[in-house]
Amino acid sequence: MAVYTDVAAEELADFLKAYDIGEVLSYKGIAEGVENSNYLLHTTSGSFFLTLYEKRVAIDDLPFFLGLMGHLATHGIVCPQPVKARNGETLGRLAGRPAAIIDFLEGVWPRKPNVAHCAAVGAALAKLHLAGRDFSMKRVNALSVSSWRPLFEQVGACADTVQPGLHDFLKAELDHLEAYWPRELPGGVIHADLFPDNVLFLSDRLSGLIDFYFACHDFFAYDVAICLNAWCFEPDHAFNVTKARALLGAYHRERALSEAEQAALPLLARGAALRFLLTRLVDFLNVPAGALVKPKDPLEYVRKLRFQQRVGGVRDYGVAILGPVA
Amino acid sequence: MAVYTDVAAEELADFLKAYDIGEVLSYKGIAEGVENSNYLLHTTSGSFFLTLYEKRVAIDDLPFFLGLMGHLATHGIVCPQPVKARNGETLGRLAGRPAAIIDFLEGVWPRKPNVAHCAAVGAALAKLHLAGRDFSMKRVNALSVSSWRPLFEQVGACADTVQPGLHDFLKAELDHLEAYWPRELPGGVIHADLFPDNVLFLSDRLSGLIDFYFACHDFFAYDVAICLNAWCFEPDHAFNVTKARALLGAYHRERALSEAEQAALPLLARGAALRFLLTRLVDFLNVPAGALVKPKDPLEYVRKLRFQQRVGGVRDYGVAILGPVA
Repeated sequence: MAVYTDVAAEELADFLKAYDIGEVLSYKGIAEGVENSNYLLHTTSGSFFLTLYEKRVAIDDLPFFLGLMGHLATHGIVCPQPVKARNGETLGRLAGRPAAIIDFLEGVWPRKPNVAHCAAVGAALAKLHLAGRDFSMKRVNALSVSSWRPLFEQVGACADTVQPGLHDFLKAELDHLEAYWPRELPGGVIHADLFPDNVLFLSDRLSGLIDFYFACHDFFAYDVAICLNAWCFEPDHAFNVTKARALLGAYHRERALSEAEQAALPLLARGAALRFLLTRLVDFLNVPAGALVKPKDPLEYVRKLRFQQRVGGVRDYGVAILGPVA
Repeated sequence: MAVYTDVAAEELADFLKAYDIGEVLSYKGIAEGVENSNYLLHTTSGSFFLTLYEKRVAIDDLPFFLGLMGHLATHGIVCPQPVKARNGETLGRLAGRPAAIIDFLEGVWPRKPNVAHCAAVGAALAKLHLAGRDFSMKRVNALSVSSWRPLFEQVGACADTVQPGLHDFLKAELDHLEAYWPRELPGGVIHADLFPDNVLFLSDRLSGLIDFYFACHDFFAYDVAICLNAWCFEPDHAFNVTKARALLGAYHRERALSEAEQAALPLLARGAALRFLLTRLVDFLNVPAGALVKPKDPLEYVRKLRFQQRVGGVRDYGVAILGPVA
């Protein structure tokens, strides 16, 4: 939930003079997203998002994010497309912040994902991986395995205040993941944050993927692992193998997972769980005074990590080894 | 800023089956309003507000608020109109809360109100007072003079932690206002919260009044006094007599202020300042853990109150005694 930067009507009207999207009718700060200030903007020509990039997003990365959204939107992926100003640029400046106008995508995200949602997201993720292959810009994953020890060092000393024993649990897991993290797997552009609130549906049809602000280059299977954690656990923390089977099966039909990827999936899922556990811990232990952001529960990811530690192979995700696609 | 209650897509789709406003396309939690959960809803037939009433709004008052909005909208005041369900009701139930669908009004609220804005709001306030005269429902002002001592007693003990000397300052002011508060002045339905964020403009034209959830019966001139405090101070806390003159003059042209009302205005403005000072203090001293609401600054209203204490008559608001309207 976030609106950090307020925008005056006069400033916004000036900003929009560089675009061909008509006059402002209204703009409302949206209580979604935790990294940026987002407004839903109505103009005489339609609905748009106005995003102001706050300091947690590196300005140097914005051309990658905006370029990727543009690339994917023209390669068969339904995702918000940045609107070009008359000078061809997608990135401007408003209220002292880098800012962009982005097409508004209709759709609602599933609060209670079902099996069909999981299958749809699996297929969409595979299509995203394929569509990103010929995108020319690169962005290293700033939140991959090499970043986890520095994060751990930020929060390790306070971890036991969140849950007794958490420090040693994190340390042991980190040691294990650093020792065994795969070096070679198929990779390319990944979304890296494809949680349910970033996938829109209209009726039961997936209508779009949003929020590409963690997108980067990494193993495709790591993106799948993030989704297993984000989509396949029930509110009571039970892992739902039917959902996992649907997600993995639908992915595999669009982009076949190699044997090496399948073998690595449990370890990648442990890593994905640790990554969100660590960043949630950082946020949880560093809520600024006057913050408008409610930190997400880090302990949810302790439970997910414990589950993934016990997984022996993809069979525990409800699938036999996935074979070649007919 | 508020979204307290999340709504699942399935619940919302069910809720909307009682209305003739089409299918859900999207709904986004809005970071505006501090009392309720508000969503901007796009359906196949247009844009709406979906409001879920949280516990700070008394359920028994909702028919008054919704009825008033309906009444005003059919009496020449541009304000959001509650949408009737097929059974004729405007109030339903969603996610365990009373809930209503309300027409979305386009427009933007002025972050930096100018003299023309102040004139427009003065005229609109007078028209609202006139349009409300034949509204049949009644609601006592729960935040008028008799409520201030209980509020003071809630926060008095901690007041000096916010500003040294504040306790005694509040107590003396309260004693004065209780002793001198007028008993008889023209009254009727007032908005009671017509701050800039509740007045929408398109270009420079006032396009609507919103947020009637403090509306009640009280002196008309008290509503004017609330607006003087809310609209006529500069960011550096200076009182802008040009804005006050514009606001009062425009009001007076639509609904003439009697001599008694004009004489009472400085005292009413002190009361209006104390009312917002006290409720902001309550909010400031009672921010719940995990709150998503950033409390407004109570000290802003200490400064406004000190100004109003020094006002000798409407002349200090930049106007001679306002005479009969030609």
